Amino acid sequence: MEKTSSSVSWKGNMAFEVSLNGHNFMIDAEPHVGGENLGPRPKPLMLSALAGCTAMDVVAILKKMRIEFDDLKVTVEGEQTEEHPKHFTKMMVKYEVWGKDLPLDKIEKAVNLSEERYCGVSVVYRKAMPVESQIVLHES
Amino acid sequence: MEKTSSSVSWKGNMAFEVSLNGHNFMIDAEPHVGGENLGPRPKPLMLSALAGCTAMDVVAILKKMRIEFDDLKVTVEGEQTEEHPKHFTKMMVKYEVWGKDLPLDKIEKAVNLSEERYCGVSVVYRKAMPVESQIVLHES
Repeated sequence: MEKTSSSVSWKGNMAFEVSLNGHNFMIDAEPHVGGENLGPRPKPLMLSALAGCTAMDVVAILKKMRIEFDDLKVTVEGEQTEEHPKHFTKMMVKYEVWGKDLPLDKIEKAVNLSEERYCGVSVVYRKAMPVESQIVLHES
Repeated sequence: MEKTSSSVSWKGNMAFEVSLNGHNFMIDAEPHVGGENLGPRPKPLMLSALAGCTAMDVVAILKKMRIEFDDLKVTVEGEQTEEHPKHFTKMMVKYEVWGKDLPLDKIEKAVNLSEERYCGVSVVYRKAMPVESQIVLHES
């Protein structure tokens, strides 16, 4: 059983320093709830986790497939409940790829492989909510 | 319906820049899978999201209860499967509080309120796996 951990250490007020894989960054609350916006909010790090996980998969798979591309951006949008505890009930993943004559079918295959076989974040979130995806190609 | 989003933009190789709430930080893979460790891995950001979310709740609740403390640290450890897609199947949350004559019962109440009423990360993860917690008080 592989174990991983992350900790957050209080820096006064609502600010915390996140420690993960030997790297550190700040998280903080918004001013209207007593924070100073010294870093992002913690809950939407859930969206960053999914975006980063699947984006790295897609880059690695496209490289293996020898698909050339100029740029890649993955955006994850989450819908939240309005009642407490406010939590995500749906996520939409948008894959944007820039390049010349990009092969949509192979990019779709890479995205599917990530979603179904490689991305451990996606697997967990799908147990709790629907996760939709969309591919947008940009001719560059 | 409240919407939030986060994006990751490719920075070459396996590195990406995360954008969230107007803040940016790098994520990257480990050298043995082609990365350069320019930032943390994306998947365990799931642990940071939970640690940060519940830590902010606890600080806010203890402040409301007028409980004085010197320091607070929350560590989330996740157990992962060994098969692909490698994903978390259990999380353990450790709350460490430093202070003088800390009231365990009130700190337990604050932790329970976060887990059951306020922390939207905890709610989602509990739909997918068990999430355990532990409180450790340090006399300072």
